[in-house]
Amino acid sequence: MENRKLRAGMIGGGIGAFIGPVHRMALELDHSAEIVAGAFSRDSKKTEASGARLYLDPQRVYHDYRAMAEREAALPEDRRLDFVVIVTPNSTHFEIASTFLQHGFHVVCDKPVALTLEEAKSLQSIASENSRLFMITHAYTGYPMVKQARQMVRNGELGDILKVVVDYLQGWVPFRLQGAGKGEKGWKFDPKVSGKSLTIADIGIHAENLVHYITALEIEELCADTTSFLAGHGLEDDGSVLIRFRGGSKGVLSASQTLAGEHNGLVIRIYGTKKGLIWKQEQPEELLVRDLNRIDTVLHKGGPDLYEEANAAKRLPSGHPDGLIVAFANLYRAFYQSIRRQQGGEEPSGGIPSGDFPNIADGVRGMAFVETVLQSAASEKKWIKMKA
Amino acid sequence: MENRKLRAGMIGGGIGAFIGPVHRMALELDHSAEIVAGAFSRDSKKTEASGARLYLDPQRVYHDYRAMAEREAALPEDRRLDFVVIVTPNSTHFEIASTFLQHGFHVVCDKPVALTLEEAKSLQSIASENSRLFMITHAYTGYPMVKQARQMVRNGELGDILKVVVDYLQGWVPFRLQGAGKGEKGWKFDPKVSGKSLTIADIGIHAENLVHYITALEIEELCADTTSFLAGHGLEDDGSVLIRFRGGSKGVLSASQTLAGEHNGLVIRIYGTKKGLIWKQEQPEELLVRDLNRIDTVLHKGGPDLYEEANAAKRLPSGHPDGLIVAFANLYRAFYQSIRRQQGGEEPSGGIPSGDFPNIADGVRGMAFVETVLQSAASEKKWIKMKA
Amino acid sequence: MENRKLRAGMIGGGIGAFIGPVHRMALELDHSAEIVAGAFSRDSKKTEASGARLYLDPQRVYHDYRAMAEREAALPEDRRLDFVVIVTPNSTHFEIASTFLQHGFHVVCDKPVALTLEEAKSLQSIASENSRLFMITHAYTGYPMVKQARQMVRNGELGDILKVVVDYLQGWVPFRLQGAGKGEKGWKFDPKVSGKSLTIADIGIHAENLVHYITALEIEELCADTTSFLAGHGLEDDGSVLIRFRGGSKGVLSASQTLAGEHNGLVIRIYGTKKGLIWKQEQPEELLVRDLNRIDTVLHKGGPDLYEEANAAKRLPSGHPDGLIVAFANLYRAFYQSIRRQQGGEEPSGGIPSGDFPNIADGVRGMAFVETVLQSAASEKKWIKMKA
Amino acid sequence: MENRKLRAGMIGGGIGAFIGPVHRMALELDHSAEIVAGAFSRDSKKTEASGARLYLDPQRVYHDYRAMAEREAALPEDRRLDFVVIVTPNSTHFEIASTFLQHGFHVVCDKPVALTLEEAKSLQSIASENSRLFMITHAYTGYPMVKQARQMVRNGELGDILKVVVDYLQGWVPFRLQGAGKGEKGWKFDPKVSGKSLTIADIGIHAENLVHYITALEIEELCADTTSFLAGHGLEDDGSVLIRFRGGSKGVLSASQTLAGEHNGLVIRIYGTKKGLIWKQEQPEELLVRDLNRIDTVLHKGGPDLYEEANAAKRLPSGHPDGLIVAFANLYRAFYQSIRRQQGGEEPSGGIPSGDFPNIADGVRGMAFVETVLQSAASEKKWIKMKA
Repeated sequence: MENRKLRAGMIGGGIGAFIGPVHRMALELDHSAEIVAGAFSRDSKKTEASGARLYLDPQRVYHDYRAMAEREAALPEDRRLDFVVIVTPNSTHFEIASTFLQHGFHVVCDKPVALTLEEAKSLQSIASENSRLFMITHAYTGYPMVKQARQMVRNGELGDILKVVVDYLQGWVPFRLQGAGKGEKGWKFDPKVSGKSLTIADIGIHAENLVHYITALEIEELCADTTSFLAGHGLEDDGSVLIRFRGGSKGVLSASQTLAGEHNGLVIRIYGTKKGLIWKQEQPEELLVRDLNRIDTVLHKGGPDLYEEANAAKRLPSGHPDGLIVAFANLYRAFYQSIRRQQGGEEPSGGIPSGDFPNIADGVRGMAFVETVLQSAASEKKWIKMKA
Repeated sequence: MENRKLRAGMIGGGIGAFIGPVHRMALELDHSAEIVAGAFSRDSKKTEASGARLYLDPQRVYHDYRAMAEREAALPEDRRLDFVVIVTPNSTHFEIASTFLQHGFHVVCDKPVALTLEEAKSLQSIASENSRLFMITHAYTGYPMVKQARQMVRNGELGDILKVVVDYLQGWVPFRLQGAGKGEKGWKFDPKVSGKSLTIADIGIHAENLVHYITALEIEELCADTTSFLAGHGLEDDGSVLIRFRGGSKGVLSASQTLAGEHNGLVIRIYGTKKGLIWKQEQPEELLVRDLNRIDTVLHKGGPDLYEEANAAKRLPSGHPDGLIVAFANLYRAFYQSIRRQQGGEEPSGGIPSGDFPNIADGVRGMAFVETVLQSAASEKKWIKMKA
Repeated sequence: MENRKLRAGMIGGGIGAFIGPVHRMALELDHSAEIVAGAFSRDSKKTEASGARLYLDPQRVYHDYRAMAEREAALPEDRRLDFVVIVTPNSTHFEIASTFLQHGFHVVCDKPVALTLEEAKSLQSIASENSRLFMITHAYTGYPMVKQARQMVRNGELGDILKVVVDYLQGWVPFRLQGAGKGEKGWKFDPKVSGKSLTIADIGIHAENLVHYITALEIEELCADTTSFLAGHGLEDDGSVLIRFRGGSKGVLSASQTLAGEHNGLVIRIYGTKKGLIWKQEQPEELLVRDLNRIDTVLHKGGPDLYEEANAAKRLPSGHPDGLIVAFANLYRAFYQSIRRQQGGEEPSGGIPSGDFPNIADGVRGMAFVETVLQSAASEKKWIKMKA
Repeated sequence: MENRKLRAGMIGGGIGAFIGPVHRMALELDHSAEIVAGAFSRDSKKTEASGARLYLDPQRVYHDYRAMAEREAALPEDRRLDFVVIVTPNSTHFEIASTFLQHGFHVVCDKPVALTLEEAKSLQSIASENSRLFMITHAYTGYPMVKQARQMVRNGELGDILKVVVDYLQGWVPFRLQGAGKGEKGWKFDPKVSGKSLTIADIGIHAENLVHYITALEIEELCADTTSFLAGHGLEDDGSVLIRFRGGSKGVLSASQTLAGEHNGLVIRIYGTKKGLIWKQEQPEELLVRDLNRIDTVLHKGGPDLYEEANAAKRLPSGHPDGLIVAFANLYRAFYQSIRRQQGGEEPSGGIPSGDFPNIADGVRGMAFVETVLQSAASEKKWIKMKA
């Protein structure tokens, strides 16, 4: 193919949405693809505003995903979308994904990919018949230390896997029903949109996927207990599952969205005949390795001793959380506001809030600090007044 | 101004560089700006490859930053750069930044902004005379929980500040001289390029900047001890500084790059008459608040109780480290490789490495898991074979 | 009763035993009781050596627990034992405990108290008929922060309890079978001595007891999966249990002794409608409280905000782990060795290993440090040579 | 010497004191010594109550330490004290210690050992002239992992030591002056009793001692800044010290007692040419080892890979904090209360608060749990009602 960015379209993810912008930032992060079209919302004003925010050609901002599929498919190859990203509520995934696959587009879809196993299988067939790629965003598998864990298991570092304990504990259900988040209730509590499962379909499958990704274990049978503590509508907000994997390994999976104070507590512990591994999503850049003799090793993202698969997935070296990119982006965002304000006619001296971004005054103060320190050190470490 | 992305140019940051790509990802993260020109390296092949990697117009890929400044300044306003990003070695900052400021461009520059205090002041004058914005990337100030800390101090939650203890401990000097990183030595050990200070200029000023950003304290006088343990060439790789701030607060600043095993250990502890705050760069999404009565509170990025300034700086809610965007991006990267491979003629079924990205088979397995769990729970929690 | 220490006897716990000395240190810690008699081992030499080590009257060092029960019962009241401590293997608990109860002694017994439910009930009857007290050493309930957790639940701070997740993860089975601990296998692998359950009886009941202690919840029904991965002899070394408590709360209990690298990982998480609590036995002096709105509070042993029940159980203030008593005791132990060596005729200057305990030379150096610091601070903080 | 416990006397440490009971528990922990005499307080009623609490012979409870020294020295050798423990305020240490040394007793004394360097040297002479042992309780050196650290340094595992960073951060000064501890002010704020230094003499010397104990480094010169933020009376409550050790190593020592929310934050970090070590007093049973290549190892108390010196200092195996002895002791304490209550005539059934200590009902419930789990597991893991 020619040397160009891939062209992406988004369905859902309009202004105010949570996961849409995450997809947008991620898909554009490597300067390899760009959103050029979208049907962002059922609310046509929101769709237009979302398209404008992304500087899209208004011709490619659609109010209806079917129209979008048809008209984008009709574009000449050098303008046509390469793929679409579906970030709409669960109940619409099947129909939207089918439509775009059938119109010849690769598809990225949020989990759960469908409301039923039958629908999921149907999507698999459609993708296969149309030779289209289908990605489901189990994003935790993208973390460097998850890839490290996987390679360690693959390479037999753990020995035979005996036991997997995976917890995925959240607290947003009471937060939204009774706490500070009251009012953000949303469609997940509505079985018509969410499906017949709340917690297992929402996060249980992330946990299951992570186990499978790292260990390649297949579930043979399971025994589950689910509860609807607070969610109502017959939707479970808590589930615990005993698991027997093929080959004799055992597992316990706890998923809950009703646990006061929990954020996004996905923790996986994998134990083999030689070693154990513990990974926590809330501290994703560390991997704890425990060995038979109770010596703990903490592997850090970016360390020189990691597998290539892990190192290839990092953007920053050890000690620099990958989220530092966002901190950098915050500086740029403040900088852009000042540029745009100035381009609108304002002088930078006239009202840029101090502290917006580190500016040349910080640079001057920094160099004053360097020179004062060097002078103090050179003069047998006497106390020296800070240079100005 | 018109509704468009800002146009950025980059000096330095060619393929293989560390900090250049970080700037590129950050500046493009919010879909508000894009790199459209650059002089990426003194090596002209690397410059060209870097430009091609970013799909730049070859006309705007320069082999010389002076030519870039002149020719970009001559472009019509609707194509001209808005700002440049300077990510070259220290010794070139002053000259490059001066040139672009004088040609009318806003400037983003890595720290240290110059080799001397005098140069820094000169840049300040030039920026001011030309009414240009100048950002220096003390990026740690961009973290949501750093902004939270700042607001807490500003709002008097800590009472009067008594003491600040800030450590910035790294170990890359021995790592590169004696460890696994041997051979990556680089220009920082060369005083001609690096300047007369290694560690204080490289990270000491980050620590100083963070103290100033959060507390607004001004250093009145200081007493320092610096050592060149391993770096050689008269460059200090370790420094400790006792600080007296204006108004009577005291401080201790320890900066070192020679401490075996340390990654990027920037830790700031601020104590006032009412409360103390501890923030650790390696776990940036938490802020520990300690109070007079020894009750600890852990604030998390995205919590409902944070200041607006902190919440505005996050990209993901609590429990989801902002680095998750990178994990998402890794999925997209693998997806793109498959798309491009297929566009080159290959069938997706013919050779996509399994595990590249979660695909529809994961979606099917996930739904099988959901339905099996629900069935087990509904049938009085008997063991149920996993559906296929 | 008169003002005196209580008199205790010990069965088992001879030299080389693990848990016997722990009981001895604990029972004597508060200067309220003392061991004055014992039948320490089936090995009569070990019994005698153990008695001598405790400076016991040789008349009260027994080779047979039955003889001990009879003869101690026959002593006049002002010499007779108040209670006995049974720290023998599981299979002997029932018989020994019955014997001492029937001879009129209060009993402390290690868990599991018996090999079967029937035996346990029988002990309960015997204790009741004889009006004897019977303590079983579920020692984790003695931690201050466990008591704090209990009071918080009792006082409704958590609201209604929804879910309890308790893990008790150990790795000593592979450590002893395949690792550095090879050879220490011991009686726990022998079903005749250990009983028909290894892991559930050894640590599962600790986990169950802790849940009950803190929450007062009663198990209504449960569903379990157990595995014998490595232990052999039909003894499970791993078990996972789904639990339904009376009243509708749910629970998951994971107990395992076969997980490479785990030490003594007892962790309990309790979630109510208002708050969640997390306590980790390996960091027992902290209690994490998570609330509906995702604000975390870390309570520390000894803090001013704890319930009286928690504070009464501490020996040292906040920040001073109670294990510091052992560090102190190590100093004393070294000091005693020197005293005894000197009493044997040696001069202290002739051969006390340096570093045995901090001595007056440390005191002198410490005061030299204090005076040098004060002098440096007073002399406008110049560098000062350390005083000698 | 004969086979007996050593006989100890205590000066200070009466009922209500903090450190006295810690010494008493520690000195008796190993059943090797016992307190048999004391002058516990200037308040004669408190002295008598303290003696009674320890079941002492009233003849050996003294109201005056001089009388105690004289009369104990006059006792026959088989009753005479072996050593005394001095846990009185600082200003009295010198006089009391001198007196007992001169009467032929070994001495244990709290730090600081004296008010001045001169006094400390004088004590050293007196001890030496009288061939008496003198222990100063820098108890942190008694921790197993501190001994491990020391052996690692001694054996060259760290290479040459480059830098030591030691913090000792407390917050009790504001806690007592302004917080919940108001009213417990105490003698430490009185220079007549405390001496001319508050913080450096109280905890700075612990930090200095720990550095010396682990590394054997000797301070050559230092530069200090001290502040009296809150303490008043010219007493510093904060100090920071730059240190140059003999041989070229550098150090930074921060000691403060005025930092809101800090408990007892003694943290030492030692970096050599090969490895770094981090030990935190508040989590004393772990030692973090960082290596040149940024691989972290966490060593745990009781691990099979520790030096003999470390393992000899533990009382419990890995995963069992040594403070568990105190949790055990709390069970015993509750048990004793019930015994004493019953011996006073009450029936155990009549009013023993439930939950005081785990009793036979817990044993019964535990065995019911074990049998229910085994039955559920054996019956193809169906749900089983809990046995009663």
